[in-house]
Amino acid sequence: MSRLAGHCVVAQSGGPTAVINASVCGVIQTALKHPEVFTGVYGANHGILGVLNEDLFDLGKEDRAVIDALKRTPSSALGTCRYKLKSIEKSRVDYERIVKVFKTHDIRYFFYAGGNDSMDTADKISQLAGQMGYDLVAIGVPKTIDNDLPMTDHCPGFGSAAKYAATSVMEAGRDTEAISAKKDYSAIVEIMGRHAGWLAAATGTAHRDEKDAPHLVYLPEVAFSIERFIADVRDVIRQVGFCVIAVGEGIRDDKGKLLAEVGGQFAKDAFGHTQLGGASETLREIVENEVGIKCRTIKLGNCQRQAMHFASLTDVNEAWQCGAAAVEAALAGHNCKMVTLVRGGNGPEDYSCSTGLADLSSVANHEKLVPRSFINQTGNHITQAMRDYVMPLMRGQAPIDIGPDGLPIYPRLRGFAIPKKVT
Amino acid sequence: MSRLAGHCVVAQSGGPTAVINASVCGVIQTALKHPEVFTGVYGANHGILGVLNEDLFDLGKEDRAVIDALKRTPSSALGTCRYKLKSIEKSRVDYERIVKVFKTHDIRYFFYAGGNDSMDTADKISQLAGQMGYDLVAIGVPKTIDNDLPMTDHCPGFGSAAKYAATSVMEAGRDTEAISAKKDYSAIVEIMGRHAGWLAAATGTAHRDEKDAPHLVYLPEVAFSIERFIADVRDVIRQVGFCVIAVGEGIRDDKGKLLAEVGGQFAKDAFGHTQLGGASETLREIVENEVGIKCRTIKLGNCQRQAMHFASLTDVNEAWQCGAAAVEAALAGHNCKMVTLVRGGNGPEDYSCSTGLADLSSVANHEKLVPRSFINQTGNHITQAMRDYVMPLMRGQAPIDIGPDGLPIYPRLRGFAIPKKVT
Repeated sequence: MSRLAGHCVVAQSGGPTAVINASVCGVIQTALKHPEVFTGVYGANHGILGVLNEDLFDLGKEDRAVIDALKRTPSSALGTCRYKLKSIEKSRVDYERIVKVFKTHDIRYFFYAGGNDSMDTADKISQLAGQMGYDLVAIGVPKTIDNDLPMTDHCPGFGSAAKYAATSVMEAGRDTEAISAKKDYSAIVEIMGRHAGWLAAATGTAHRDEKDAPHLVYLPEVAFSIERFIADVRDVIRQVGFCVIAVGEGIRDDKGKLLAEVGGQFAKDAFGHTQLGGASETLREIVENEVGIKCRTIKLGNCQRQAMHFASLTDVNEAWQCGAAAVEAALAGHNCKMVTLVRGGNGPEDYSCSTGLADLSSVANHEKLVPRSFINQTGNHITQAMRDYVMPLMRGQAPIDIGPDGLPIYPRLRGFAIPKKVT
Repeated sequence: MSRLAGHCVVAQSGGPTAVINASVCGVIQTALKHPEVFTGVYGANHGILGVLNEDLFDLGKEDRAVIDALKRTPSSALGTCRYKLKSIEKSRVDYERIVKVFKTHDIRYFFYAGGNDSMDTADKISQLAGQMGYDLVAIGVPKTIDNDLPMTDHCPGFGSAAKYAATSVMEAGRDTEAISAKKDYSAIVEIMGRHAGWLAAATGTAHRDEKDAPHLVYLPEVAFSIERFIADVRDVIRQVGFCVIAVGEGIRDDKGKLLAEVGGQFAKDAFGHTQLGGASETLREIVENEVGIKCRTIKLGNCQRQAMHFASLTDVNEAWQCGAAAVEAALAGHNCKMVTLVRGGNGPEDYSCSTGLADLSSVANHEKLVPRSFINQTGNHITQAMRDYVMPLMRGQAPIDIGPDGLPIYPRLRGFAIPKKVT
């Protein structure tokens, strides 16, 4: 290799997942194999904020067993953030500060695991560094349970969240079935997904036969009709005797108004995103008042992105591969790319997956929604195409370490701080 | 054996659990070994309602592999109910109808898996049958994730729910820790338990070190003080930088008023129980308004009693043993008894468990609360005594069958209906 030698830094951004640490593990383990290029392997504390604050760790000093255990540890071990950098013009002070920190610490490689905002950040940092005469390689590692990144077949984090959410809906279905002694019981499980309904759609796979939940699946991609919904629930109750509904939190009516805002509570988080959580409450009221049956709601909340205890081995392995591929891309001389997952094989029984690369700029600020062909004509469930897409991603049980108390062991990094040098 | 020969019927009652089917499996598999006594092995559809409605299955006709898979299938495969029989005087028509159905079908043994209401029902049925000159043996099998039955060291269903809830709190903790870039993030996980806080207390075991969630645990057993709560959260934020709180849904203030009623929404279910779910919302408002930090809520809902995908092997095995022991008790000539779990060994590392028997009347309508010695002095976390109690119950990973889609396979009984004979 005749690559420019320098330190590399890896950071995590956005909502944590069960496997984003596996990606970081892939970055660290691969980078440590190439000390001739990566003279140091650093982590940034809480994403780009860690760079801005010059809050860096020396990951090379960590116990190698703990690094390896990142494959079996959920959430963002380096800490995450939702700090959004704007355009270079508007956030110039931040960008210049970042480049200064990189320069001061001889950091030449930046690996950023995150969603589309993070890809935009990584792209702009590399661009500005170049303009400032400092060679900085930025490679993105895809991450999101929402599965809404373009250019990649799917996103690490999605398969595990899908497996957990689908299983939870399946189990909630068995509960509702068992307690429906006098028939007419229903439950609504609210699934994460503000704009893209991938995760809610994935729960549809649990519906293997007529009795299996979810009987109805509603996604943000299809305008939600309250009248149609009432008719749907009545149909299921008549045919099955009980009804379990999976609903994406971001479902909207035909005017684009969030169902969460129609009836339930909602709020904005510190990042300005609408903090959803009311769609299921709105629907519960409709079911109880209009259909006249009892209805329970389940909101798995952040558990959906953390359930390492039932994560997909396929997902863990692919997440690791994405991290490794990011480092390999840098070694091969690429810059401003995001690693992508490329599906091979013919259909779900013949699934294979390799990695590719896409321009960061082609990923940044775009969202991939569930295609209409993955949703049935009535708009209340998924099609076989969606099943074929998601099934292979949920396969395999990711191993975890278990303590004498029967609970998982999720180690933490020690976080060996790099002394600050920037004034 | 010189026992009275006749059919036996097994039924399930109350909230389903991950392991109540394992108990039914224990009953069926053991009863089928003794055809000289149990001339038929029946199931009642939806608990005592199935008897009242003469809605019975012939379990002897089921595929033996499916019977065995009940150990790996959550919820109540026979269906459950919350139909509460009152005193013999007040519900005489029901009781007489039940005895009539039993008599007509030559049912001499009734195995009822459920909580304390169910034990009361089983006790009264046997008594009334005796008064009517019909020998009927009633044996109860303990079941409840709430762990609130007296006379038994613990209840089948609790260990698995504890394992899942503790793990979910642990994982929610990692999420909160990772996203707390600017510090001051908090989350509240609301745990089932109207009167007894066993399950919320069990989540306390996930707090292995200072950073580990839950940092605070509040139970219905200790009067809740809003002032103390605010001070507790501030302390944790100061020391740890973020705060995850586990709270039993039934927490009450010093006047006995449910926190769920102080601020959040609540309702009554069809059974007359207050349908809680608002405690976490009430506390969230307090945290956001009084402590001034962002707070998320997680309500696992019915998932807590269904999470076969991460159930305790100890719990599954003990649930099966309770079912088997119920049949053995009947064979040994006992009547009006509930099987109990008797803890052996010295401490959690030396745990063993056998079964015993207690009078149904001593179990019926009593609740066992978390003892004060299991709760710390401040009333905001658990003690080592609680850890020692619950840890062995969560041990071992219960096996499940997994389909090609990566999701669990939970079979259903076919339900071979017994022709109705009662007019």
